[in-house]
Order: sequence, then C-alpha cells, then structure tokens
Amino acid sequence: MLTKKHLIIGAMLHGAGGNMASWKHPSGPADASVNISHYRELVEKAEEAKIDFVFVADGLAINKDVLPHFLNRFEPLTILSALASVTSHIGLVGTLSTSYTQPFTVARQFGSLDLISGGRAGWNVVTSPSTGAAHNHSQASFPNHALRYEIAEEHVEVVKGLWDSYEDDAFLYDRENDTYFDPNKMHAIHHQGKHFQVEGPLNIQRSPQGQTVVFQAGSSDAGRDLAAKTADAVFTGHKDLEAALAFYQDVKNRAKEHGRNPDDIAILPGIGPIIGETEEEVEGKYAALRNGVSIHTALNYLGRYFDHYDFSVHALDEAFPDIGEVGSEAFKSTTDLIKADAKKHGKTLRQVALEATTPRSEFSGTPEHVANEIERWFHAGALDGIIFGSPLLNDGLHLFIEKVLPILQEKGIAQTDYAGSTLRENLGLPFKQNRHTKTISKAGV
Amino acid sequence: MLTKKHLIIGAMLHGAGGNMASWKHPSGPADASVNISHYRELVEKAEEAKIDFVFVADGLAINKDVLPHFLNRFEPLTILSALASVTSHIGLVGTLSTSYTQPFTVARQFGSLDLISGGRAGWNVVTSPSTGAAHNHSQASFPNHALRYEIAEEHVEVVKGLWDSYEDDAFLYDRENDTYFDPNKMHAIHHQGKHFQVEGPLNIQRSPQGQTVVFQAGSSDAGRDLAAKTADAVFTGHKDLEAALAFYQDVKNRAKEHGRNPDDIAILPGIGPIIGETEEEVEGKYAALRNGVSIHTALNYLGRYFDHYDFSVHALDEAFPDIGEVGSEAFKSTTDLIKADAKKHGKTLRQVALEATTPRSEFSGTPEHVANEIERWFHAGALDGIIFGSPLLNDGLHLFIEKVLPILQEKGIAQTDYAGSTLRENLGLPFKQNRHTKTISKAGV
Repeated sequence: MLTKKHLIIGAMLHGAGGNMASWKHPSGPADASVNISHYRELVEKAEEAKIDFVFVADGLAINKDVLPHFLNRFEPLTILSALASVTSHIGLVGTLSTSYTQPFTVARQFGSLDLISGGRAGWNVVTSPSTGAAHNHSQASFPNHALRYEIAEEHVEVVKGLWDSYEDDAFLYDRENDTYFDPNKMHAIHHQGKHFQVEGPLNIQRSPQGQTVVFQAGSSDAGRDLAAKTADAVFTGHKDLEAALAFYQDVKNRAKEHGRNPDDIAILPGIGPIIGETEEEVEGKYAALRNGVSIHTALNYLGRYFDHYDFSVHALDEAFPDIGEVGSEAFKSTTDLIKADAKKHGKTLRQVALEATTPRSEFSGTPEHVANEIERWFHAGALDGIIFGSPLLNDGLHLFIEKVLPILQEKGIAQTDYAGSTLRENLGLPFKQNRHTKTISKAGV
Repeated sequence: MLTKKHLIIGAMLHGAGGNMASWKHPSGPADASVNISHYRELVEKAEEAKIDFVFVADGLAINKDVLPHFLNRFEPLTILSALASVTSHIGLVGTLSTSYTQPFTVARQFGSLDLISGGRAGWNVVTSPSTGAAHNHSQASFPNHALRYEIAEEHVEVVKGLWDSYEDDAFLYDRENDTYFDPNKMHAIHHQGKHFQVEGPLNIQRSPQGQTVVFQAGSSDAGRDLAAKTADAVFTGHKDLEAALAFYQDVKNRAKEHGRNPDDIAILPGIGPIIGETEEEVEGKYAALRNGVSIHTALNYLGRYFDHYDFSVHALDEAFPDIGEVGSEAFKSTTDLIKADAKKHGKTLRQVALEATTPRSEFSGTPEHVANEIERWFHAGALDGIIFGSPLLNDGLHLFIEKVLPILQEKGIAQTDYAGSTLRENLGLPFKQNRHTKTISKAGV
C-alpha cells in the first residue's frame, strides 16, 4: 500500500472509447477523438470529481479495418498541454514510445508539459510493437521484444538523467549579482550507451514534482522488470482477481529486488466496465456494441494482436487454431492470455474473435456492482488504484463520476479532494529528489 | 504583395528577449522564459492587439556562457498547445528541427496543434547547425550545410504528404450506414527516399486551414531555395533596406522559377528595436544591456556563430581577425555578414563582439520612428510583414502594441481586426488544397 490511503483513480481519454464500435453509440459525439470541446468538457468534469489523472493512450500507425476512430486522433503531448491550461489539479498522463523518439526530445517535451502544468505530467512508456509503426518511422520492422526493452531501459535512464540536469535551487535569477544560475548545480550526463549518446544538460528546469511521473504499460517478463526498475506507476490489465493479485505481488517483489521501496510504485489496472442502472441496461449496451461489429472486422481486430495474422483462413466454428508463435512478439502477454483462455474453455475462433472485440468486463454492471468490485480488488491487495476506461467512454465516465464515485467516497475508499497540487502528491508518491543534490545535515559539520 | 493588403505582424515569444542581458532588465520577470503566466499575459495582449501570430524560437543545446535564460525555456510544441487553449484567433508558430526528428512525429504534433487551435499552427523549419545539438541526439557532429538542406527538403516533403493523408470530406461519421470514413479519401504516401521511408497515412485529419503554415528561416543560398520551393513564409533578417529589398526580390523570383505564385510566400524580416519616448531613453536602455555583458561573454557569444571558435586568442583592439572559413558552416549567412561588415568599416574584434551581443537596430527609436521605418520598408517592397522581437521583449512588445501599433493603424498599414480565424486567412495565404482532391467542374463531364 502506498502512502496514499485512498484508491488512486485515473480516467482514460481517448475519444469515443476503446471499442471499434464506440463511435457509433449515441451517448457521445461521433468525432470524439478529434473534438477539442469534448476533451475539455471531460477533463473539467474529471477534475471537478477529484479524479487523480487523465490518461491519453496512443498509436503510431492506423489499421483502417479496426478502430476507425483511431485513424484520427490528437497526439498526446499537444492535447495534454492544451488541457493543462484549463485545469489546475488533475494529472496529465500521455503515452510516448521509446522506439522512435530521441530521449532529449522526450525529456524536453514532458519536462515542458510538467512545468506548464505546475508538476502534473506523467509519461506512459511503451515500446510500440507494430510493423505499421516501424514503416512510418523509416524502419523495415520493429525491434524484437528483448531489444525493444533494452532500448526502452536505456532511453528512460537517459531521460531521467536529463530531468536532473538542474538542481532545484540552480536558478537564482539574481540581477544585482549578475547570476542567473549556479553552474555548480547544472549537470551534463555525458551518456555514452549502446543505443544513445547524449551529452546534456537539458534546457529546462525541473517541475514542482521533481520529475515527471513514469508509467510503464508492458506486462511481459521484460515489461514487469522494466517497471520494477524504473516506473513510478504501472498501467496493467487482468482477466481476474487471481491474476491481478499475482501481478501485484510479483511487481512489488521485483521492485524490492531492485532495492526500491515497493510503496514507490503504484499498480493501476485498467478497468473497462459498461455501467447501467440495471443488468438489462448493461446487456443492451453490450448488444449495441457487438451488433456494430462484423465477423470480418472481428477477425481483423484479433489479428492485430498477432502482428496482423490472417485468421480468415481458419474455420470460424471450430476450436481456436494453433498458430504456433506467429506474430506473438507484438503483444506477447495479451496473446499468451488469449491462447490459454481459448484452450482452457474450448472456445471457437468465432467466440475468441467476438470476445476480443467486445469482452465482457467483470466490473460491468450497476453502479453498486462496479463500486463493490473495485472495493473487493482494492481490499484484496490487487491494486493501488484503477485507470477507468469504458467501451462507451463518454457514457461510462459520466456514470462513473455521477453514480459510482459517490458510493466509493461513502465507503471511504475514494478521495473527496486532492491531496496536493502535483501528480506525485496526488498519487501518494514522494517528491523525486535530484540525484545530484546532497542532503545537508542540519547538525552541521 | 500578398492578397493581404495590410502589414503582417508576428511577435516573438522567447522569454525575456534575445539579448544575453535581457533577463536582468527590470521591465519583465527574470524567469520569463519558464513563466507560464507571463506567456499567457503576452499572448492575450498580442491577440487583443490583433497581432497575426506569436513565434516561439528554439535551441537544442545550451551554451552556459551566453544567453543564460536560454538554459531554461519551454519547448515550442507544448507551450504553443497550452496557449491555444487561452486564445481564439492569433497564430501559433514554433521552431522544430528537421535534423533530429521523424517526419511522422512532426506531422502529427503540428497537425494536432493545428486541429486543437482551429487552424492556427505554423512550423518554422530549421536545420540546427550546432555541435551541441548533435551531441544531445546521439550524433558525433551535425550534417554539413548541403546535406542538412537535402535532409530538410525531403523531411518537409514527407510531412506535407502526410498532412494530405485525408481529404477534407474523408470523415463522414455516419452511424446509420456504419461509415466512419471513406477509405477512397485516405491516402498513404509510400515514401521511399534517401533519408526517410514513410508509409503513412497519418493518424489525424487536416485542420480548417488545410495544412499548417510552413515558415523557413535559413537565408543562405540553399535556405532561400528551400524557402522558395516549400515555404509559405520566410523569417529573415537584414542589416539594411538595400539587403532586404534584394532578398525579397530574390526569394520571390526563385518562387516563380519553381512555378509558384510569388504571392503565396510571405517575406517577414525579424526586427528587434528598442523603443523609448525619447532618443535618450532608447540609449539608456541600450546602455543598460551593454553594461550587463563582459568582453569575455561577448567573445563567447560571437564564437557561437562560428561553431564556438575561441576569439580570445586574438588581440581585442586590432582589426577583426581573418579566421578563414573556420566554423562558417553553422550560421553561414550571419558569419558572412559579420565578416563583410567588419572589413568594410575596419572594425576591431572588440567592436564586432560587443555589437554582436547588442547590435543597434536601425528600427530603434521613438514610436514615431519605429512606425516610420516599418512604413518605409513596407512601401519600398522589402517585406510583406515583420516579426517583432526586442532585446527587451516585455518592454518592447508592450510599447509596440501601445504606442507603435496605433500609428501604423492610423497610417492604414496595420489591421484593426483579424481577417479570419485561421493563420492562413490572417496571413492572406490561400487555403491549402489537398493534393488528392480533384476539383469537380460544375459544368459536368
């Protein structure tokens, strides 16, 4: 458990929602993913509800056959910077890949967002396992899983080093003594690594939270290890409570093995419930989504997790085919889960494909059910908080704020006000000390 | 002359100002370059004055001996996105280098800023001739002048191609007919070039101005040619009216040679006057700046234009030394000007160094003088507009808006309201047609 006693709550902001038929539902605007008024309205509502942060996911290539509204969406750094101007407390977390960026650029852009927002920025580190992404960035293919994580680890190390370029009292702005800054408190990093060579220093000071909060979203072995070594928060996802508990313990243990305080890393599973006043209403919303997806589209969507494998060559109503390790590099932990689940329950290809497009979340249900499930997971020790998404994002987030949150607040689980003004304060994470700053003992020499 | 009959006016936003002693002057906050309230206040004031755009310059490495306030400044894309939320008409132009960025990233980030702001974004293309920048981006040195421009030209070509990924009526949002978009109006670019290979399409639609306005800032032969081929606007700078006239004609002629309408490219010299109610007040402000700079710092500053050449090995009060072509790659047009001017006027190293840190602009003077000089250049045909900077930016911009602008408006040179709501409209540039959209003749077949 973190120093924060309440449940951490983040809210996904990614247009209409993560389901390919999300945009068709009348509960929100069809152009939600590029509608700036819609984004402003949601973030203002989330801040009013004291939600800790909003989270903007990303993609570096389109697949026109699935998730059409992801063809057309805001870039994370720019939309979060725009939202910084209309908010004052809510955290602003965005996804950015380590595979196609320069650490210096990433350090600057998040550093700048962090300063503009008064210490509310978060970076969700991803490694972009997609052929389409590679082809948009002058690469023939994406690096293999191990290499991607090797690059990611070095990238994050460089970015964090750059973020400590200036100690917090480096800038003096002393006009009388002609001293803008203290050069002894400026530190180049002189990084000469395998993948990056970066001299530094960065050209921006630290923010009120010290460093931008680092999220990590990979759940594979390498992903967990990277998270345990370097992340402040982990964005994850689980089939059931048992898996969530195991993941939570595993990452906290790995953090300890890396010499870290396990309280300094927040485990935040994403949950994607559909919320309704009754079970019938919930089922009606699921039906509206599933009816919007053809089997052709569903197979394409499933294939996306397997590096665009063509499942249409297999029989739809026979057992899920054994395709070996095909494409499993891309979303390894997800594809392992899909395969294991299909085998365990004897599912057909059709079932697997349809469930992949619109899986039923065990969090779905009435507001009471949603609140009780969250409470159950929280008290079981499976999470430090949640990142709320929904296949019907506008509908879901409004219902979560209006109906679920008051129950969680009444239970004493959710906060009723922000703990502070920076994202670290609101997540219950300590201010990030600058590695170069020596603590001065008050007792003297 | 463009279709816009008025003088185009842009305003530099870069903290305290471009002089190394700017931060010391009491007319603005010492931490101006990272003060978000200060940026908001200036952009709001500029918009109220109907200034066409603000312009955020950039640097990819620091030099701690000069311009200390550039150690610590906002990154252009993030600060412009933040300012988009607090403005509605003013253009938002930022510098981004083609030497250390992926065209896909640049196209997305400016495309996103453009959409967020309702069509007000501008990209100032630079090639970053700095060893420090190279060392911050895993490169041993920066590409030579010709190669930098070759890369820049291909980079801009790819970005513009990506910006046309979707025709303006590609997104239908038709829920009833399950048609989010028309795939026939989506276009990948399949670019296979010498420096970049980019498949596309981009994952964001075009903005209300069609494409982000492209500024170009290099004044060398290659820079002029790139501008004439690809730019909508040129940010330049000149010693005198004669040079400005020659540059204006040269770039407009080159545009014609490339088959373009010379009215489609706006020539915008930067001017950096100090403004005072009297000549004495102007001189006092110059003295305050020059007194803030030591000769050691001045030599360092001069060296910056010559790839950090160490001028301290030469005698201060003898003729400006002949250092051959040393370092002249970096800012070729600037160093050529400095050398020619020193030779022509028989200047000493000390004179050249001090003038380099705080050159007297011929635009400096009383509000009437500033307005008259601008009028003279405008009517002579040396410019389509100006980009206003000042070594004392806060002082200068306030005085420009309060004292100079009313005179220019009275003369009928400056506008009293915005022509439209996009940057292209306000610059008098045509909407950028999508290259894939066929104009349909109303007369039929």
